[in-house]
Amino acid sequence: MDLTETCLDSESIVETSFLKISRDSIRLPNGKQSERVVVRHPGAACVLAVTAEDKAVLVRQWRYAVGKPLLELPAGKLDIAGEDPAECALRELAEETPYTAERVKLLHTFYTAPGFCDEKMYLYLAEGVREGSELETDEDEFTETVLMSREEVRAALLNDEIADAKTLIGLQYWLLNDQ
Amino acid sequence: MDLTETCLDSESIVETSFLKISRDSIRLPNGKQSERVVVRHPGAACVLAVTAEDKAVLVRQWRYAVGKPLLELPAGKLDIAGEDPAECALRELAEETPYTAERVKLLHTFYTAPGFCDEKMYLYLAEGVREGSELETDEDEFTETVLMSREEVRAALLNDEIADAKTLIGLQYWLLNDQ
Repeated sequence: MDLTETCLDSESIVETSFLKISRDSIRLPNGKQSERVVVRHPGAACVLAVTAEDKAVLVRQWRYAVGKPLLELPAGKLDIAGEDPAECALRELAEETPYTAERVKLLHTFYTAPGFCDEKMYLYLAEGVREGSELETDEDEFTETVLMSREEVRAALLNDEIADAKTLIGLQYWLLNDQ
Repeated sequence: MDLTETCLDSESIVETSFLKISRDSIRLPNGKQSERVVVRHPGAACVLAVTAEDKAVLVRQWRYAVGKPLLELPAGKLDIAGEDPAECALRELAEETPYTAERVKLLHTFYTAPGFCDEKMYLYLAEGVREGSELETDEDEFTETVLMSREEVRAALLNDEIADAKTLIGLQYWLLNDQ
């Protein structure tokens, strides 16, 4: 079955510092026309870093869109078109937590909300994790570092306490790949 | 540390059939002002349904925003403000696949893209799964049903072939809760 939807026309609605929103006219597989509102995003990277004590490094930060703080993997938007997401993951770990990594290994790439948005997330595993020096924090970013053991993660998943999609994926990966 | 960001002013940019996008002026925890563009979404539900042959029920559908078909858990937006997400999950399973369920159990609730969007996703496990009768398909929805064994899911995860966040969460849940 051909599932392809073809763009017939695209009207820009708004551009912000990092989002471009458009209303597109499209042709459905059955030949009929329809409309799609699309949110274009530069992409992002996040990182599962595990300390020498076998604890996952998370950050608690306010999420204005949802009106509360969430516990998340260190993450950030790709700064410029074409930024290496691995570099972004290493940078965000160092900026948001007291930990650094020597390198990262790609675990999964996925779309966070493909029904209306093209945000592509690169999830990495940090290798060579070290407790670093001073935080290199963005001046308008406010985060707290939280360390969680595997037992604490298992309990948090059971109690539905992890409310961020990429973080659930990273922590489930960690539990599935128990060494 | 108080992480709260307070809304000072909100300007509506655009409203579509299901998204409301606004540009908000906010006060940061340090008293400085900043700006957030927020995409408001009605919320959605998705469902992990496993057949009597121990295969997960997935759907392949075109995702216009990302320009390709993705393999996903059956899912859908909440139709009206206040729709029971459990009802939504049961409906989408019956609409998108040849399977139905007697009831669903909540596994996780999470935000798909909390950096800019309030979409809240309810992930359910289907109970009493049966191969149903005719598809009750939406006329402008085009999907293919795909069944995957645990072995196929393990291989797909290893090869980074599952590219949708909610589906990664549902399938990793399945593998973590091997009975």
